[in-house]
Amino acid sequence: MALIVQKYGGTSVGSIERIRNVAERVAKFKMLGHQVVVVLSAMSGETNKLIALAKQIQKEPDPRELDVLLSTGEQVTISLLAMALKDLGLKAKSYTGAQVRIVTDAAHTKARILSIDEANMRRDLDSGHVVVVAGFQGVDEAGNITTLGRGGSDTTGVALAAALHADECQIYTDVDGVYTTDPRIVPEARRLKTITFEEMLEMASLGSKVLQIRSVEFAGKYKVKLRVLSSFEEEGEGTLITFEEDTMEQPIISGIAFNRDEAKLTVLGVPDKPGIAAHILGPIADANIDVDMIVQNVGHDGTTDFSFTVHRNEFKKAMDVLGMIKTAIGAREVVGDDKIAKVSIVGMGMRNHAGIAGKMFKTLADENINIQMISTSEIKISVVVEDKYMELAVRALHQAFELEKEAAAPAV
Amino acid sequence: MALIVQKYGGTSVGSIERIRNVAERVAKFKMLGHQVVVVLSAMSGETNKLIALAKQIQKEPDPRELDVLLSTGEQVTISLLAMALKDLGLKAKSYTGAQVRIVTDAAHTKARILSIDEANMRRDLDSGHVVVVAGFQGVDEAGNITTLGRGGSDTTGVALAAALHADECQIYTDVDGVYTTDPRIVPEARRLKTITFEEMLEMASLGSKVLQIRSVEFAGKYKVKLRVLSSFEEEGEGTLITFEEDTMEQPIISGIAFNRDEAKLTVLGVPDKPGIAAHILGPIADANIDVDMIVQNVGHDGTTDFSFTVHRNEFKKAMDVLGMIKTAIGAREVVGDDKIAKVSIVGMGMRNHAGIAGKMFKTLADENINIQMISTSEIKISVVVEDKYMELAVRALHQAFELEKEAAAPAV
Repeated sequence: MALIVQKYGGTSVGSIERIRNVAERVAKFKMLGHQVVVVLSAMSGETNKLIALAKQIQKEPDPRELDVLLSTGEQVTISLLAMALKDLGLKAKSYTGAQVRIVTDAAHTKARILSIDEANMRRDLDSGHVVVVAGFQGVDEAGNITTLGRGGSDTTGVALAAALHADECQIYTDVDGVYTTDPRIVPEARRLKTITFEEMLEMASLGSKVLQIRSVEFAGKYKVKLRVLSSFEEEGEGTLITFEEDTMEQPIISGIAFNRDEAKLTVLGVPDKPGIAAHILGPIADANIDVDMIVQNVGHDGTTDFSFTVHRNEFKKAMDVLGMIKTAIGAREVVGDDKIAKVSIVGMGMRNHAGIAGKMFKTLADENINIQMISTSEIKISVVVEDKYMELAVRALHQAFELEKEAAAPAV
Repeated sequence: MALIVQKYGGTSVGSIERIRNVAERVAKFKMLGHQVVVVLSAMSGETNKLIALAKQIQKEPDPRELDVLLSTGEQVTISLLAMALKDLGLKAKSYTGAQVRIVTDAAHTKARILSIDEANMRRDLDSGHVVVVAGFQGVDEAGNITTLGRGGSDTTGVALAAALHADECQIYTDVDGVYTTDPRIVPEARRLKTITFEEMLEMASLGSKVLQIRSVEFAGKYKVKLRVLSSFEEEGEGTLITFEEDTMEQPIISGIAFNRDEAKLTVLGVPDKPGIAAHILGPIADANIDVDMIVQNVGHDGTTDFSFTVHRNEFKKAMDVLGMIKTAIGAREVVGDDKIAKVSIVGMGMRNHAGIAGKMFKTLADENINIQMISTSEIKISVVVEDKYMELAVRALHQAFELEKEAAAPAV
């Protein structure tokens, strides 16, 4: 008997029919003797519908009240699934975030989980119930309803699995696993049987969108066995997200991530002295703009150039901020470009293999794609290119690193 | 400065536009220096929509889960109204039933309020907030979400007014007060400026449908000043529900109520001995069937006839119960009729005036309407007639008691 946490996303519970299907899948696991905790998102489209409703009232909906509103989405699905499970003759009980007591901080619309009280769920599991928990939501110390932000249901699933010491956390979604890259761009893209947490983090943050990044961090921190599966296929093992030590043989490159939601900004000719990065990024952070890549090259003539990328939606705002501080920081010029894309190769194996970067850059050069920015970490290399070349770059790299093959050949 | 509780029903918050109107009305009271607590129903139609959704999953939705589902309806409206109030520059904060801690018993879908913690609301009121509370819902001692049943938002409003010792509880609805009878049947029907709690109880339970009966009982018990008003009219004082001692001069008859949702059942020729009523009504109660009128006349030849009315929806079920116990209780025959209507005259004044009943019966006789059952209380007389005569009976009685006039003339 295992304790399994299963998380189903919005499309998986998008209709009465699909909620019944989820109930049947849960029943199968229950019949095998497992204890099952189910975490649900709102029906697909529901959260957006509620946000649209709120925006009809307030252009910038009050965050506390928006959380009260949005949390109803999962409250609907958990009650309906509990009914569907009872209709199959199972014992089931729904829990809102507040009822579990998933305690978060008070950062409405993007709260972080502080603690989970598993006593009530444990009691219900031990008495044979399926426990159905609303994802995405919690409650702060003062009793205010909070939400964890987009994709927060994944985080709820992993956090519950950690709190309950579950044997596995299964994330059911509309894809059947993690691929080497997006099959819509590279038809030969291959589903990975395993991927490490670290690679998954890099893949997710770069736009692979299978799992919410915070949930992966959480899983890594608490050593939760995490598996991505399709909720629309009967069979299939999905992709297991592993700790590196679990994996016998590691391919050099696991996948190629990409993202065209970013814009780049460059401050030209700032004095090359300590503190300049903070002087530029401080006001950006104060304006609540998240920064992704940051690149600063060695200076010359006592000045340097400083570049960074932000979400494309915040490009104008970020340009305005730089415009305001330009004189104060002594910059010569501020330039920006929102027609860019970021393409990254990700793989644990590259740590032990030289020449991966060179191969990447040569592959792009062979396609006449100019590289505008480069940034590297232990297990990924990202480049910024003109956005119209994005698909070409992804396809060329997928082929160069032979990712369509089960185990990628040594690259150099 | 007064503390006012305002309750708005589903039609009053049925659209974004109407929620804005409610916000503006609340703002007016706030500007006058009052403290305001607002209690809301779900948007009109929403509760039925959710019930329909549940019934697609389970024919008889699980009561605990149904409450989880239904309580989302008010959670949506409170958050939207709080946003609308903030959009007007007011301070506002929404509360679910659980957040207030409106503690109820565990009778899902028809819970009763046990206690209300007013500390948090009081603190918010004192710091200038409008407090917006979800009607219809609470939480049991174990933390399960409960609902109070249809019309429960009225009860929430009155209960909050009692807990907070509010100066007035205003129930905003789609009618502008309590009428002498339904204006759709008697165009001359007149809005009452005041009505006593006792009369209101009789009117409501007999189908006047302006206020939920439990809320009126609650108001009477805790001496809450209750006013029914239209949410669609700018001006108007509505109808104030008073304690009898408040009223200087009491009309003899305040109004005429009617109801064609009932069916009557008669057990013929049961032994006329102690305990027979209990033997008949016990199994009916065990089947969860509510009984309204009960009539038993003096017996003869050692047997008697026993009649009662139930909701028309439960007629068949009640007939089945009587069929099963018929032999055991020694009855000769069981007959029933669901083509009936109940018509009642209600008025505090009738206690001190003889001849009211006689005038009522003569009025009906003049119209050739046969009376099938009669039942009386201190302040009302109800008759059961064939349902096709209902409108005629109501109109004839309204005219006979001159209810269209401001102060009804002595009837006898």
